[in-house]
Amino acid sequence: MDLPDSGVQSLRASSSSEEICSEDSLSGHVVNHITFEHDGTLKGLFCQMDVLRTYGGDLVWKEMTRWVKFEEVLEEGGKRWSKPHVSSLSMAAFMELTELLSTCPILLDVECNGMVDVADRVLDSWISEGNVKSLIGNQIRTILLKKHKHPYGRSNASSKEHRKKMNSSTDGTVIPKSISFTMNGVYNDGFELNDNRPEIPSYLHSSPSTQSLSLSNKTNTRFLRKIPSGAEVANLMVGEMEELPRRIAVFVRLKEARNVGDITEVKLCTRFLFILLGPKNHLASCVAAARCMGALLTDEIFMAVVYRAKSRRDILTGVEEFSKHMTALPPGYWDPQTRLEPPEHIPSQEHRKNPPSSPDDQVLHTTDEIHESHDDPTLQLTGRLFGGLINDIKRKLPWYKSDITDALHIQCVASFMYLFLATLTPNVTFGGLLGDATDKYMGTMECIMAAAITGVIYALFSGQPLNILGSTGPMLVLEQILYRFCKDYGWDFMPFRMLIGLWTTLFLLLVVAFDLSALVKFITRFTEECFACLIAIIFIYEAFAKVADIQNFAPVHYFPPKNLSQCTCVLPFLTNTSNENFTHTAAVFKIIFANNETAETEIYNNSTANSLLSNLGVEACTALGGISVGDACADLKYVPDVFFFSWLLFFGTFVLAMSLEKFRSSLFFPTFIRQNVSDFAVLISIVVMVVLDAITGIPTPKLSVPTEFKPTRPDRGWIINPISDKNPWWLYLLSALPALLATILIFMDQQITAVIVNRKEHKLNKGSGYHLDMLIVAILVGLLSLLGLPWYVAATVTALAHVMSLKKESETAAPGEKPVFLGAREQRITALMVGIFSGLAVLITSVLRYIPMPVLYGVFLYMGIAALGGMQLVQRILLFFMPLKYQPDYVFLRHVPLRRVHLYTAIQIVCLILLWVVKSVKVISIAFPIMVLATVFIRKALDWVFTQRELQWLDHILPSLRKPETKAEHTDKLESGVEKHPTESNKF
Amino acid sequence: MDLPDSGVQSLRASSSSEEICSEDSLSGHVVNHITFEHDGTLKGLFCQMDVLRTYGGDLVWKEMTRWVKFEEVLEEGGKRWSKPHVSSLSMAAFMELTELLSTCPILLDVECNGMVDVADRVLDSWISEGNVKSLIGNQIRTILLKKHKHPYGRSNASSKEHRKKMNSSTDGTVIPKSISFTMNGVYNDGFELNDNRPEIPSYLHSSPSTQSLSLSNKTNTRFLRKIPSGAEVANLMVGEMEELPRRIAVFVRLKEARNVGDITEVKLCTRFLFILLGPKNHLASCVAAARCMGALLTDEIFMAVVYRAKSRRDILTGVEEFSKHMTALPPGYWDPQTRLEPPEHIPSQEHRKNPPSSPDDQVLHTTDEIHESHDDPTLQLTGRLFGGLINDIKRKLPWYKSDITDALHIQCVASFMYLFLATLTPNVTFGGLLGDATDKYMGTMECIMAAAITGVIYALFSGQPLNILGSTGPMLVLEQILYRFCKDYGWDFMPFRMLIGLWTTLFLLLVVAFDLSALVKFITRFTEECFACLIAIIFIYEAFAKVADIQNFAPVHYFPPKNLSQCTCVLPFLTNTSNENFTHTAAVFKIIFANNETAETEIYNNSTANSLLSNLGVEACTALGGISVGDACADLKYVPDVFFFSWLLFFGTFVLAMSLEKFRSSLFFPTFIRQNVSDFAVLISIVVMVVLDAITGIPTPKLSVPTEFKPTRPDRGWIINPISDKNPWWLYLLSALPALLATILIFMDQQITAVIVNRKEHKLNKGSGYHLDMLIVAILVGLLSLLGLPWYVAATVTALAHVMSLKKESETAAPGEKPVFLGAREQRITALMVGIFSGLAVLITSVLRYIPMPVLYGVFLYMGIAALGGMQLVQRILLFFMPLKYQPDYVFLRHVPLRRVHLYTAIQIVCLILLWVVKSVKVISIAFPIMVLATVFIRKALDWVFTQRELQWLDHILPSLRKPETKAEHTDKLESGVEKHPTESNKF
Repeated sequence: MDLPDSGVQSLRASSSSEEICSEDSLSGHVVNHITFEHDGTLKGLFCQMDVLRTYGGDLVWKEMTRWVKFEEVLEEGGKRWSKPHVSSLSMAAFMELTELLSTCPILLDVECNGMVDVADRVLDSWISEGNVKSLIGNQIRTILLKKHKHPYGRSNASSKEHRKKMNSSTDGTVIPKSISFTMNGVYNDGFELNDNRPEIPSYLHSSPSTQSLSLSNKTNTRFLRKIPSGAEVANLMVGEMEELPRRIAVFVRLKEARNVGDITEVKLCTRFLFILLGPKNHLASCVAAARCMGALLTDEIFMAVVYRAKSRRDILTGVEEFSKHMTALPPGYWDPQTRLEPPEHIPSQEHRKNPPSSPDDQVLHTTDEIHESHDDPTLQLTGRLFGGLINDIKRKLPWYKSDITDALHIQCVASFMYLFLATLTPNVTFGGLLGDATDKYMGTMECIMAAAITGVIYALFSGQPLNILGSTGPMLVLEQILYRFCKDYGWDFMPFRMLIGLWTTLFLLLVVAFDLSALVKFITRFTEECFACLIAIIFIYEAFAKVADIQNFAPVHYFPPKNLSQCTCVLPFLTNTSNENFTHTAAVFKIIFANNETAETEIYNNSTANSLLSNLGVEACTALGGISVGDACADLKYVPDVFFFSWLLFFGTFVLAMSLEKFRSSLFFPTFIRQNVSDFAVLISIVVMVVLDAITGIPTPKLSVPTEFKPTRPDRGWIINPISDKNPWWLYLLSALPALLATILIFMDQQITAVIVNRKEHKLNKGSGYHLDMLIVAILVGLLSLLGLPWYVAATVTALAHVMSLKKESETAAPGEKPVFLGAREQRITALMVGIFSGLAVLITSVLRYIPMPVLYGVFLYMGIAALGGMQLVQRILLFFMPLKYQPDYVFLRHVPLRRVHLYTAIQIVCLILLWVVKSVKVISIAFPIMVLATVFIRKALDWVFTQRELQWLDHILPSLRKPETKAEHTDKLESGVEKHPTESNKF
Repeated sequence: MDLPDSGVQSLRASSSSEEICSEDSLSGHVVNHITFEHDGTLKGLFCQMDVLRTYGGDLVWKEMTRWVKFEEVLEEGGKRWSKPHVSSLSMAAFMELTELLSTCPILLDVECNGMVDVADRVLDSWISEGNVKSLIGNQIRTILLKKHKHPYGRSNASSKEHRKKMNSSTDGTVIPKSISFTMNGVYNDGFELNDNRPEIPSYLHSSPSTQSLSLSNKTNTRFLRKIPSGAEVANLMVGEMEELPRRIAVFVRLKEARNVGDITEVKLCTRFLFILLGPKNHLASCVAAARCMGALLTDEIFMAVVYRAKSRRDILTGVEEFSKHMTALPPGYWDPQTRLEPPEHIPSQEHRKNPPSSPDDQVLHTTDEIHESHDDPTLQLTGRLFGGLINDIKRKLPWYKSDITDALHIQCVASFMYLFLATLTPNVTFGGLLGDATDKYMGTMECIMAAAITGVIYALFSGQPLNILGSTGPMLVLEQILYRFCKDYGWDFMPFRMLIGLWTTLFLLLVVAFDLSALVKFITRFTEECFACLIAIIFIYEAFAKVADIQNFAPVHYFPPKNLSQCTCVLPFLTNTSNENFTHTAAVFKIIFANNETAETEIYNNSTANSLLSNLGVEACTALGGISVGDACADLKYVPDVFFFSWLLFFGTFVLAMSLEKFRSSLFFPTFIRQNVSDFAVLISIVVMVVLDAITGIPTPKLSVPTEFKPTRPDRGWIINPISDKNPWWLYLLSALPALLATILIFMDQQITAVIVNRKEHKLNKGSGYHLDMLIVAILVGLLSLLGLPWYVAATVTALAHVMSLKKESETAAPGEKPVFLGAREQRITALMVGIFSGLAVLITSVLRYIPMPVLYGVFLYMGIAALGGMQLVQRILLFFMPLKYQPDYVFLRHVPLRRVHLYTAIQIVCLILLWVVKSVKVISIAFPIMVLATVFIRKALDWVFTQRELQWLDHILPSLRKPETKAEHTDKLESGVEKHPTESNKF
């Protein structure tokens, strides 16, 4: 930096060594003893500004403003601190302060025993520099020793006490009872320096460290916790005195931080004092100048300067350096009274500590960092057999203990219960589907067993225990196809399936052996988003579809279904068609079409009994003592209220869970309550809705879990014999073919989910373990095949829900500092408990059967929506509907033209649609894993459509052969899409 | 202001007269001809910064930043402007700019024909001041004449054209094809001034006003609309040249604004040019300095200075004045790259135009204004008979024409349809209740008639046609009591009621005659809020209660009601108790308890036919051909699905209306669409839900309006005869007593609603008409009594919904300026149409009967919630649940201690509860109007509990005998509770 004077040079020198350049020493108080922390970390300053006010007939120093990092102002009434805000400084006041500091006495390394000493030293310097005449010197001294009042003190009690004290002490002293402030500015210029000071009241002479200058002797211990430990205090004192002709100021640095008297709100030692007294009607401008001093002293760099300063010049250099880096807002379009919210992240001050050499660098220092390339050191080919696996184990082993201890948090309980219910439901529903597909060779019980076994083993041994294994749609399709094959060719399904499983295990072990998981680095955000978005949409779609399906189980049935003619009611007593009996039938009919006038009218007009009977529902027919005959009769049972009540439960659960989750950032109730309510959001919603369901007693469909540990189909055991007479020998080899498909499927499902969970934005610090994960999955596939259970792989939405339910935020430190997302509670216990309880679910069916299915579908909807939430793809899709001027300040929009962004989004949407189609159309759904794989190649092809720079902003750069460079930690803000602090792009 | 130099003095002088103090004239270009607007309103400057960039192999001036009021930056990619933001200036850059301006040539009032002239003049000045050597002078000249490129130009086409042009033109000129920028900074210092300039290419010599310096000859006409008409342009040009040893700059003011060549994005004339060229690697810092210039030139005050400046000194004075008023943000806690959102209101610059004399005033200028007292000139006692009324008419008459023409807006259509449906429902439901209370002397038809008559007359003649008259609860109570009296004493109800009506009219006319409406000024925010909050809560409560009531009409009936024993089923065929018949009964029973297992089991265990029969519902019994006997039978009809579906409709309507209303401030779709969707929010919700209801066909209760214009009770006509034989003569006098009560009721209801509608925050500018309103109400009461219709007065929630549905917002002008709430569309047409259509509703019952009641209850819920929304009372109640540090920056919290605020809120809550109790308990509900009146006295009593200052912040000050002073227009921000720009309280 090419500064006109060598100011910052001295700063730079001082930060690298203990040598401080100070050619001149105006103050004459420079000493070498500096207690500045040598490890380079400043402990911080608590800065307190007291203003001279009239209180209870006397003058007191009243604390009006304070800084830990941000500024807090005492609101009118004196009982309430404002919200912490960024100090908005008036430039005029800042200039005044600079002027004051360049003329006022600067007392460095003063040794003192208390405020009395300080006042004497200050007065001496003022008098010696001719700022103050001796006559008012005494008055000033008295004022400087006035008591200090903090808003948190027991003001009433102590002020009485204080008044009593004052009365008793002044009896014997020379201090006037009340200093005349009504002299109307008459100032005798002729008075000269006069050293006969008035006597000091004894209570001010008492041991300086314990003397009570404050009105309250209770310090604010609660607030003390907000101040970094080891911090010292800078006391600013501002007042007005009619007798003064002009402003006088002094800056004092004590040799050692000490309690100079009870002048500070908190029990910390004072290091700096800045005293500014102005003439009448100058108080507001003095306060403004002192505020600038407060902002200066809480600045990290200026703090370092002022701790080391050997002279006025050093301090002025610091002020100048500070002012150069200030941000100025034009007066015409910014109200200076606006209280600015503290920023999300406190900006780094590195560029100030190490000033750049070229003037342009100075401006450019905060240019947007480009994405770091998508390289993970664990995803390198090691070139050794099981090299990656060994590295994974070596890396994960040291974390193992903390993987257990880190679970000691109430949040983990919430997470476990949420995940338990969230995974149990798919097990049950998937079990039903699987049972249908395989003639109950594998059903709900098998799914529950699989969930328990995989859950426990994966939680205990995997590389990334935040992953939750589950059943997936494509897997179901595979099983269906296999079973159909077996049926068609008369093979034994379970042994065949077991062979495939063993082959798959073998293939997966090969993947582990040759570090093929390293290929994961080709799975970029493009593929991740397509896949995760698809899964989330499926979740949402399924949630709605399942609730709509309730109509099949409990038809609303308010009008006759079209195919009712296929179900006729045969009534025994209709043989004698008397008039009485007809009324009978019509009346029953009326129940069914309850209050539907049209239907009712129809009956009496069209009085043919047969047509009526064919329109009757099954239950109505039974009610009449008749028998329903026909194919369609199964569809005609009539359950009122269930369907609509299910929708109420469904939406209720979703809305409640969403609202409670957002409660975390609401303004009501203390953090502790909000935190817990938010953590338990899903659980609370489920409980509320279960209670509502129980109260109304509507027979909604409930979660039904098998009650006994036994295979769904009685003719199979828990262990499968791979040898079957029905299966020809070549099937042992042929089964390698479907195993290949299964391998691709498992690999893609497992690793994409792992990539998503391990994303930078989740801030996991225990590292990934792709190779180890794969090994465990391989072993599990073998085990599950042996036991004849469905294969489970990482389930994207559940895993994401798991990570989200475990997120940690920092506790706020200084008032105004924003809590920072710290990552997730990475541990194995929640996953382990989910696994164990998935199995134990069989034992607690009596509890579980109170849970209505629509409530669980509501949870699915919530999970799906939550998973979609943070996705950049969704943000980009929404951009289509936003007029240009409303578009948020996404960082990629600053760098990539909108049309290119739209093109990229459109390509992703096409991929998504293709995936959806492939997944949905039964015939080709087996190709789904290959289609997912294809997105990786589509992404590769995009290299031809987009520039590398554009792709850097929209996606990652695909790895090449070049050695990746390590980049700065700038990605998390890029990943999250919107920058909290939009940085201006410097394109020059 | 006591500035060190006389800087601002000159500014002050220049803003008051045309005399400009300029002792020195460094530039020598000062002329007296200044085209500054003499009416004092500056037309504004459009400021455009072009940066020298390489484009298509050549250099061009590319527009990178622009200012109308706020700054917009061209994002990377060059296709997209950033969001408008407040220019955050680097102080270092600002200092550099100041330095540049104090040394660089300042060319004032240059006469020129185009960019060529300007370039020559600029070069001359640089060369004559020794900034530039002649050798590179030519290069600089070439660069200055490079084409300009704007992002909105047809860049591709024109760049090709440009390149072709360049190639052809350079053939015959001396300009080097490409200026060497690879000279690596070799600069021959020995070269001397050399005047033989290269020839100018012919295309640059063409008529300056039409020459095409820009790459695109299409200007941005769309953007032009955002710039105030009459604005001129300041062109900033920044570039770097390797050959330059240091920065060179020039500031040019043209004598007359003119098109100097196609260098500006919009077709406006250039007045100022600021050119800044730096050496290599200085571009970013040069751009930063030029940005400061841009911010300066868009500042209102600096603009005035620079238009009038006669010398460099004037400009530097302006810069200094600007810098003094800048807000500085500390570097440690503020990221300078943050783009600050434009503030809600652009701060007033009055304090800069008229600098205060004392230094403290300077700091204090934005202290919070205190509430203005609650005085309305129309609420003064005139002392003449009908004085207030005459004033009202005089004031309202001139608006009458605009009251009709202002209705020409689509929003009014939305408002009318919303209000029509919102008022029709209470008419119908209130009519039902009234019919019950008066043995159908007055029913739904009478209510509809009353609504139509009052609607039309009030809309046409009232003082505040935004008020909507409606039926109120206390009125119903009054009618009930009167009718009971008449029944007990054998009097004729309708004639008696008519007498009371006539007395009431008389009393109300007295109120009008003696300007008693002036007492309204004692109704402060305290009473308003208690009343309005109560009414809103009643709305919300009633909405829920009514939906819950649907269960009575359509019981869910999934378990046997307790009192079923009071309804037994007598079955004719159960006399022969054969086994078949028993099964029969049990089966029917099964219908009723559809799928409820518990109930089913019970049947077979407890097989007594009688107990079964007593548990049968009416419909089931009828279905069996039996007859239900007992008192409770009426309660036992069974309608499935309706109840839960009603809740779905109810919540659906509410959520949809809420979301659509909020759609106004969403980021999607253009303003026009959002505006209309938001205006029609309620209507769209109703239509969607009606369609949903129609599709499902569930027999939900529908809106049922009488189909014929005839009195509900056939034995009464449309005109009431006041003389009845049954009524004794003294009843004619006695009726004055209930009339007094009715008068209080009508007065309070009517005027509180009027006060709420006329609130300052609604920004109505056609004024109130309390006296006129009262006159119309008095006449209406008479008329309604004569016709035997219920009395209608202003309905709070409906009136508020009316005002809200008509709110206007300003269209945004400069990019980044926030739309301002401008008030409501004050007109009579919507209210008139609501009145007319209320009557016509009888004719369109075929349409109206498709509307399910739960949908309308949803609308009520929406109206209630919306009415609660803006209430300070609600804000204060929420404060109870907010930890101190999360409490919003409400202005009253800055001035009143929290404990006092809580006390005040608690008192209001007690009042609210009292009102609720009085209203709800039948016996005392007649005292409701008196209780409302009581809140006025409670408020008066608060003068003893709270200080006047506290009450000023929490409420209004009650009027006293003192003459009210007129205060500044600062209340709207106070009224709204939260200040958009929290101003710092200066308590010194």
